[in-house]
Amino acid sequence: MSNDSKLATLDSTIVDRLPAYSQTLFTAKTNKRLTFEQIAKELGRSEVAIAALFYGQATASAEDVQKLSALLDIPIENLSTALNLAGFPDRGRAGPMPPVEPLIYRLYEIVQNYGYAFKAVMNEKFGDGIMSAIAFSSKVEKEVDSDGVTWVNINLRGKWLPFTRF
Amino acid sequence: MSNDSKLATLDSTIVDRLPAYSQTLFTAKTNKRLTFEQIAKELGRSEVAIAALFYGQATASAEDVQKLSALLDIPIENLSTALNLAGFPDRGRAGPMPPVEPLIYRLYEIVQNYGYAFKAVMNEKFGDGIMSAIAFSSKVEKEVDSDGVTWVNINLRGKWLPFTRF
Amino acid sequence: MSNDSKLATLDSTIVDRLPAYSQTLFTAKTNKRLTFEQIAKELGRSEVAIAALFYGQATASAEDVQKLSALLDIPIENLSTALNLAGFPDRGRAGPMPPVEPLIYRLYEIVQNYGYAFKAVMNEKFGDGIMSAIAFSSKVEKEVDSDGVTWVNINLRGKWLPFTRF
Amino acid sequence: MSNDSKLATLDSTIVDRLPAYSQTLFTAKTNKRLTFEQIAKELGRSEVAIAALFYGQATASAEDVQKLSALLDIPIENLSTALNLAGFPDRGRAGPMPPVEPLIYRLYEIVQNYGYAFKAVMNEKFGDGIMSAIAFSSKVEKEVDSDGVTWVNINLRGKWLPFTRF
Amino acid sequence: MSNDSKLATLDSTIVDRLPAYSQTLFTAKTNKRLTFEQIAKELGRSEVAIAALFYGQATASAEDVQKLSALLDIPIENLSTALNLAGFPDRGRAGPMPPVEPLIYRLYEIVQNYGYAFKAVMNEKFGDGIMSAIAFSSKVEKEVDSDGVTWVNINLRGKWLPFTRF
Amino acid sequence: MSNDSKLATLDSTIVDRLPAYSQTLFTAKTNKRLTFEQIAKELGRSEVAIAALFYGQATASAEDVQKLSALLDIPIENLSTALNLAGFPDRGRAGPMPPVEPLIYRLYEIVQNYGYAFKAVMNEKFGDGIMSAIAFSSKVEKEVDSDGVTWVNINLRGKWLPFTRF
Amino acid sequence: MSNDSKLATLDSTIVDRLPAYSQTLFTAKTNKRLTFEQIAKELGRSEVAIAALFYGQATASAEDVQKLSALLDIPIENLSTALNLAGFPDRGRAGPMPPVEPLIYRLYEIVQNYGYAFKAVMNEKFGDGIMSAIAFSSKVEKEVDSDGVTWVNINLRGKWLPFTRF
Amino acid sequence: MSNDSKLATLDSTIVDRLPAYSQTLFTAKTNKRLTFEQIAKELGRSEVAIAALFYGQATASAEDVQKLSALLDIPIENLSTALNLAGFPDRGRAGPMPPVEPLIYRLYEIVQNYGYAFKAVMNEKFGDGIMSAIAFSSKVEKEVDSDGVTWVNINLRGKWLPFTRF
Amino acid sequence: MSNDSKLATLDSTIVDRLPAYSQTLFTAKTNKRLTFEQIAKELGRSEVAIAALFYGQATASAEDVQKLSALLDIPIENLSTALNLAGFPDRGRAGPMPPVEPLIYRLYEIVQNYGYAFKAVMNEKFGDGIMSAIAFSSKVEKEVDSDGVTWVNINLRGKWLPFTRF
Amino acid sequence: MSNDSKLATLDSTIVDRLPAYSQTLFTAKTNKRLTFEQIAKELGRSEVAIAALFYGQATASAEDVQKLSALLDIPIENLSTALNLAGFPDRGRAGPMPPVEPLIYRLYEIVQNYGYAFKAVMNEKFGDGIMSAIAFSSKVEKEVDSDGVTWVNINLRGKWLPFTRF
Repeated sequence: MSNDSKLATLDSTIVDRLPAYSQTLFTAKTNKRLTFEQIAKELGRSEVAIAALFYGQATASAEDVQKLSALLDIPIENLSTALNLAGFPDRGRAGPMPPVEPLIYRLYEIVQNYGYAFKAVMNEKFGDGIMSAIAFSSKVEKEVDSDGVTWVNINLRGKWLPFTRF
Repeated sequence: MSNDSKLATLDSTIVDRLPAYSQTLFTAKTNKRLTFEQIAKELGRSEVAIAALFYGQATASAEDVQKLSALLDIPIENLSTALNLAGFPDRGRAGPMPPVEPLIYRLYEIVQNYGYAFKAVMNEKFGDGIMSAIAFSSKVEKEVDSDGVTWVNINLRGKWLPFTRF
Repeated sequence: MSNDSKLATLDSTIVDRLPAYSQTLFTAKTNKRLTFEQIAKELGRSEVAIAALFYGQATASAEDVQKLSALLDIPIENLSTALNLAGFPDRGRAGPMPPVEPLIYRLYEIVQNYGYAFKAVMNEKFGDGIMSAIAFSSKVEKEVDSDGVTWVNINLRGKWLPFTRF
Repeated sequence: MSNDSKLATLDSTIVDRLPAYSQTLFTAKTNKRLTFEQIAKELGRSEVAIAALFYGQATASAEDVQKLSALLDIPIENLSTALNLAGFPDRGRAGPMPPVEPLIYRLYEIVQNYGYAFKAVMNEKFGDGIMSAIAFSSKVEKEVDSDGVTWVNINLRGKWLPFTRF
Repeated sequence: MSNDSKLATLDSTIVDRLPAYSQTLFTAKTNKRLTFEQIAKELGRSEVAIAALFYGQATASAEDVQKLSALLDIPIENLSTALNLAGFPDRGRAGPMPPVEPLIYRLYEIVQNYGYAFKAVMNEKFGDGIMSAIAFSSKVEKEVDSDGVTWVNINLRGKWLPFTRF
Repeated sequence: MSNDSKLATLDSTIVDRLPAYSQTLFTAKTNKRLTFEQIAKELGRSEVAIAALFYGQATASAEDVQKLSALLDIPIENLSTALNLAGFPDRGRAGPMPPVEPLIYRLYEIVQNYGYAFKAVMNEKFGDGIMSAIAFSSKVEKEVDSDGVTWVNINLRGKWLPFTRF
Repeated sequence: MSNDSKLATLDSTIVDRLPAYSQTLFTAKTNKRLTFEQIAKELGRSEVAIAALFYGQATASAEDVQKLSALLDIPIENLSTALNLAGFPDRGRAGPMPPVEPLIYRLYEIVQNYGYAFKAVMNEKFGDGIMSAIAFSSKVEKEVDSDGVTWVNINLRGKWLPFTRF
Repeated sequence: MSNDSKLATLDSTIVDRLPAYSQTLFTAKTNKRLTFEQIAKELGRSEVAIAALFYGQATASAEDVQKLSALLDIPIENLSTALNLAGFPDRGRAGPMPPVEPLIYRLYEIVQNYGYAFKAVMNEKFGDGIMSAIAFSSKVEKEVDSDGVTWVNINLRGKWLPFTRF
Repeated sequence: MSNDSKLATLDSTIVDRLPAYSQTLFTAKTNKRLTFEQIAKELGRSEVAIAALFYGQATASAEDVQKLSALLDIPIENLSTALNLAGFPDRGRAGPMPPVEPLIYRLYEIVQNYGYAFKAVMNEKFGDGIMSAIAFSSKVEKEVDSDGVTWVNINLRGKWLPFTRF
Repeated sequence: MSNDSKLATLDSTIVDRLPAYSQTLFTAKTNKRLTFEQIAKELGRSEVAIAALFYGQATASAEDVQKLSALLDIPIENLSTALNLAGFPDRGRAGPMPPVEPLIYRLYEIVQNYGYAFKAVMNEKFGDGIMSAIAFSSKVEKEVDSDGVTWVNINLRGKWLPFTRF
C-alpha cells in the first residue's frame, strides 16, 4: 500500500455494537498501516472474511491468532483470550437495517429489487431450497474495463440446501 | 428442461404489488413451460435480468418485446403497450423488507452480517464511494464440487462511483 | 376422529395471504371431515408438514398429489396444476410477526426468552454454526402424565451447519 | 470437555440488557472452563435452563445457589444476594426481535413459517387453547445419523391450557 | 333495553379483520335490537365473553349455538357451520396495536403505566409466574357512587401459572 | 412475610428508564425486607399504587413521604426532595410496548384480544365515552378456589367519561 | 359561500378507513354545495364537531339527524339507521400517524415540539393530571391582523382530570 | 406561588435528549422555587414559550438572557454561552412519538381523531394551505366554570400559508 | 417528443393511493402521447408542478382545467368536477417512506446524509427558522457538461419562515 | 460575520452519533467565531460540503486539512489523524428518519409529496435511471425578492445514471 492511501478504521459510533476486541484489532491495524488485503494474504483467507473477523462476524483459528499476533504486534495471550477463547460471535448487530450507509444500502437495494428474481432463477436451477449464508464464502474483486471504467465484482458462494421432505 | 421439472410461477399473493403485465408474462411462460434460462438465452440477456423484468424490476427493449411476443405467443400489440410504452418501472415493491421468504432472507442476512466488511474492503480497494446498483448486472451460476456438493454462485457487478468533492 | 370434534379450518381473514390452493384444500378437508393426523398417515408424512402444505409453506410430491386427490376428492388435474406445477412456495407470509395469535405467540416468546440459551448450549455442543430451518423436520405429540395433566411435546430437528472458514 | 474446545461466553454488547449477576456467572464459568452441560449435570437440571439462568431468564433455588457457589468458586453470600434474593427475572430483553443472530433467527423463522401449522395440528389434537411457555421445559440433544451427519434435536414441552369458557 | 338506547354494531372498517360470521351475528343482533347483556343472560355467560364471541375471539358450545339461533333468528345450520364447525378462532386481529380507539387505548395505557407495578405485586403475592390470559374470565360492572358519579369496574380473573423448574 | 420469601426488587436493566428515587426506594425496601403489601397497609393505600409509586408512575402526599421515611429509614429531607418536590411523574416509560416480559404481555394480550369486546359492552352499558385511566384505581387479589387452584383477580375501576357534544 | 369557493370533499383514498355513512354525507354536502360552517350554524354546533361527525369521529343526536336530513336532502330513515342507531364511533382510523398530510403534520409537530412544555405548564397550573380529550371541544377561527396577514386560531378546551389517589 | 405547590422539574430520564443548558435552567428554577408563570411574566413572554425554551425547543434573545440570569442567579457569561451563542435549537427530540406520557398522549389523540376535521374546516375557511407551526404561538389558560369544574384552554395560533402555484 | 420515447405512466400498483382523477389524467396523457414538459409549457407552469398535479399533490386553477380539457380531450365537466371542485388534495400518500423506488430513495438519502448540513448552513445564513415546503416551487433541468456527461439539476425554492417569538 | 450573529454549533444530544472529530471541529469553529461560509471560501468548497464534513458526512483532502488546521488553530497532526487517516465516513447516522427537526422535516416532506413527480419528470427527460446522490453536489443560496421577501434556493446536482441492460 502506498503511504498516502487511506485505511478502513473503526468508526467510534459503532464501537458499542461490536465485541471489545474489534477496537484492539483496528487500532493495531491502523498503527501498522496494514490493509485487509495484506492481512488476508498473510493468513491465507479472503479479505471479506478478515474484515468480517475484525467486525466480530467471523472467527479465528488458533493459527490465525498466532499470525495476527505477529503481524499486528499484539501479545498472543491477549489475542487468544479475546479471539480464540471468547466464545462464539454474536452476529448481525454492526449496523441498522435498513442500512443508512450509502454503500451498504446499495447492497440492500439489490436484495429489495432483485430478491424475487434471484429466488425464481435459483428455484428453476436448483429446486425448492435456499442458498446457505452459513456454508458460505465471499470475495470482492476490482475490474477496470477497456474504457478505463472501474467495476466492483462481488462473488457470493453458498451451499445449496434443499427443503427436507417430512 | 425435463418435463417433470417445476417452473417458477407468480404467487397469487404478490400479484397486487406488481404491474399488470407480470401476470400476463408468467401465465404465458407457464403455458409454454419455459424456464428463465431458456428465455434469457433467446433474448441474449442474463437470467436474473429476465426474471427481474417479469417482476417489473427491469425494462424491455423493442427487440426484447418482439422476441418475447414470439416466444410466449402474446400478440405484439399487447406486449408493446404493456412493456415498451408503459413507462418506467416503479421498483422495489415486490416483497416486504426484512424479507420473510427464507431464500431472500439469506441474501438480506449476508448484507446484515457482512455489510461493514464489504464497505471496509471496498473502501481500501477503491477509495470513498459506492458500488452502483444501477450501473449494475448480476448472474447466478451452478457449481457442483468434486464431492458432488452443489453450490450457488452469485455475481454482483456494479460500477464504482466515487463521492464527488464539492 | 369422533363426530363431535372440531377441525382446523381456514380463517377467512388470512385467505389473501395464502396461495389460492389453500382454500381448495381446506374446503375439501372440511367437507370430508378429515384431521391432519388422518391425512398425514395416508401420505406417510408428519402432521406438521401436511398442515404446512395446506398453508402454502411446504411442497407436495407427485405421489402426494395423487393421494390427496383421492382422499379429498379433488380432480387430479386441478390439484396437479395447483400443487405440483405451481412452482415454489413463497413462504413466511401467513401471519404477522410478532404473532398476535396466543398459541403462536407462545412459540415466539420461547424464542424471545430462550434464544440466547439455545445459542449458548448449541455452540458448546456443536461449535460455531446454526441449526438449519431448511434441512429440518418437526412433529407434535400429546402426552398425558400420571396426574392426568396434558402436555404438548414439539420436536424440532435440524441439520447442524457449521460456518464455513473462508 | 477437551481443553481446546470453546465455551459460550457473555458478549460485551449485550451486558447492559442483562442483570448484573450474568457477568459474574459467565466470568466464573470461563475461569473454571466449565460447559453448561457440566453445570447442568451438577445441578440436576436441563442445560437450556442453566443457560437461561445465566442470561437472567430463569431462577435458582437455594440448593442451586449452593451448588453454583461451590462449582464456580463464588462466595455464597454474593450469589445468594444476586440470585436468590434478587427478586424475579425481568424476562425477554436479551436480544432484539426479529433476531439478527443467525442461529436465533432460524428458530424465529420456524415460528414464522410453521406457526399456523403448529396451531392447526395442536387445535385438532387438543382443542381450543395454547401450549404454555411458562409451565414449560426444553432440552437440546445431539444426533449423528448413520451417514455421519449431525442433527440438532430441540424438545419443547409445555402444558396444554384450554381457553376458559366464561 | 329502552327503545332510545344505542346498540354496539359492527364498524364496516373492521369487517375484513374478522371472521365472516361476525357480520351475520351483529346484523341479527341489530335487527333484534338486543344488547350483549340480554344475550349473555340468555346463554348464561359473561357479557364480555359474548361480545368476544361476536368479534371472533371466543368460541360457542353446541348449546350456545342453539340458543343464539333461537334468539337471533338465524337458521341453526348456518350458525353451526359458522360457529361450531368452523374450527378455532384466529385471535388478536380485530384492531391495531397500539390501539387508536380512545376507549381501548385507555386499557392499553393502564398496561403501559402499571405493568411493572402489577408484576411486582403479583410476584410478591404469588411467586415467579404469570396470570393466565387463557384460563381467564372477565366481567364489566357499572357502579354509581353516592355522588351520582358513574364508574366502570372491570374484573380480570386468571389462573396463576408458576414457571416450571427444569 | 416469612423470611424465605422473595421480594420484588429493581432490575438493573430498567434503572435508566425510571426516576432516580426509584432505586433509593427499592434498595431501602430490600434492606428492610418489606413487601408492597406491608408498605401499602402502613400508608393506607393500594398495593398497586405503592408499586406504581416506586416505579415513578404515581405520586406521594406529604403524609406518605413521612410514613415512607419512617418505614424505610430514609432521611425525610432526601425523600421530600425526591418525591414531594420533584415535580410530576413522567409516566409510561418503564418498559417497552409491546411488552416482552411474559407477565406484562398477558395483560397486553387481554387488551389485544378483548379490546373491542370491552368497548362494545361499555358502550351499551354507559353510552359513547371511555373509562378513565386517570380518575382510576386498581387492586390485585389472591383467590384459592375449592380445588386448591390459585387465581389472580385484578380490579380496574375508572370513572366513566362521556364524549362532550360540541 | 360564494359559488367559486371550493368545498372539502371526501378523498377516495380514505373511504375505506371511514364508516359507510361518511361517503353519503360528503356526497350530499357536495351536491348541496354547503360548507361545514353553514351546516354547523344550522345544527348549533362547532364546525370542528360537524366535520368530525362526517369523518366518523363524533356522534349525532336525534335532532341533529333530523336537521341533517332536511338540510342535505337525505331520507331520514337512511340517516337514522346510519347515524343514530349505528352504534358508537370506532375512532382514530382516518389517517396514518405520523400524519403525511402537511396540514395535519403541523399539528402533530406542535405536539412533538411543545408536548413537554404543555405538560410543565399544565402541571404547575393544575397539578398532577391531564386535559381530557373526551370531555373536550374545539373550534377554529380566522383572524386577519392589522398588516392584513391571516392567522388561524385553534382553541382546544378540555376538562382537567386529576390523577386519583388510591 | 404558595410554598406547598409543586414545580415542574426536569425528569432525569430525559436529560440526555435535551441540550445541556436544560438542566442548568431547571435546577436554578427549582432552587429559586419559581413557576413558569412567574418567569414568563418577568420576560414578557408566554408560559408555553418559556417552558419550551427550558426544554430546548425555543430561543432566548439577549434581553431574555439578562433577565434569566438575574432571576435565576446564573452568571450571565454561562447563560450567554449556553443560550445565546449556542446556536440554533435541534428541535423535536424531547419525547417519543407516539407519546407515552398520558397528558401528552391526549394532545396526540386530538390530532389523531380530529386531524381531518381540522383540515376540512381550515380548507373551507382559508383555501389550500397549512397553519404554520413556525410562525406560531400558543398559550394555556385555566377556566373554572359556574359548576366549579376546571377546564384547560389551549390556544394555538399560526400564520396561514397558502400553497404556492408553480 | 420523438415517437419512440417513453412516457411516464401511472403504475397500477399505486392507483389505490391516489385520487380517482389521477388515472383519468394519466390515461389521457398516454393516449395523446404528451410529456409533462409539453403540458407544462401549455399551462405556463413547472413540469414538477404538473406531475404533482397528476399525482394529486397539487391543485389546478379554473384556467388550468380548461387548458387540460382541451389538451387532453377530456370533457370539461368531468375535469371540473374532478379537479376544480373536488376539494383539496390529501397529500403525502403516493409512496411508502422510506422510499423503495431507487430514484426517489436517492432524494431521501440526500436528506438523510445532508439534513444537518442544510440546517447548519441555513441557520447561519437566515437565522432560526425553516425553508417552507408550502410557499415553495421546484424545477428540474438537464445539463450536459463539456465531457458529454449528463447531470440533473433540481432547484428547490422555498420562503424563509423565521420562528415567531412568543 | 457581525458579532451579534449566531453560529451553528454542535448539539450535545447528537454528539454520540457522530465521529469524534466533529466535536473538535465545531468547538474550534465556535471559538474562532467562523461561519461555514467563511470556511468554505477559504477551502474553495461549497458551504454544504463543509458543513457535511463537520458532521462526518464528507471527507477532507490533505490540502483541506492544512487549511482547516491553520484557520481553526488545530495542530495539524491531530487533524490529520482524525480527518485524513481516519478512514472513510460512516454516513447517514446524524439524525433520525423521519426527521423530527422542523427544518429537516420540510426537506423530507418535499421528497414525500413530490417524489413521484420528480421521478416522472426525470424519467421523461432522461430515461430509466436515477440522479446520483454520490456523484453529487449541492449549494444553498439566499434570495430577497422585490417585495423584500426572503427565499431559500437549494440546488441539487447529480450525475444521471441509466439502468444497465444485462
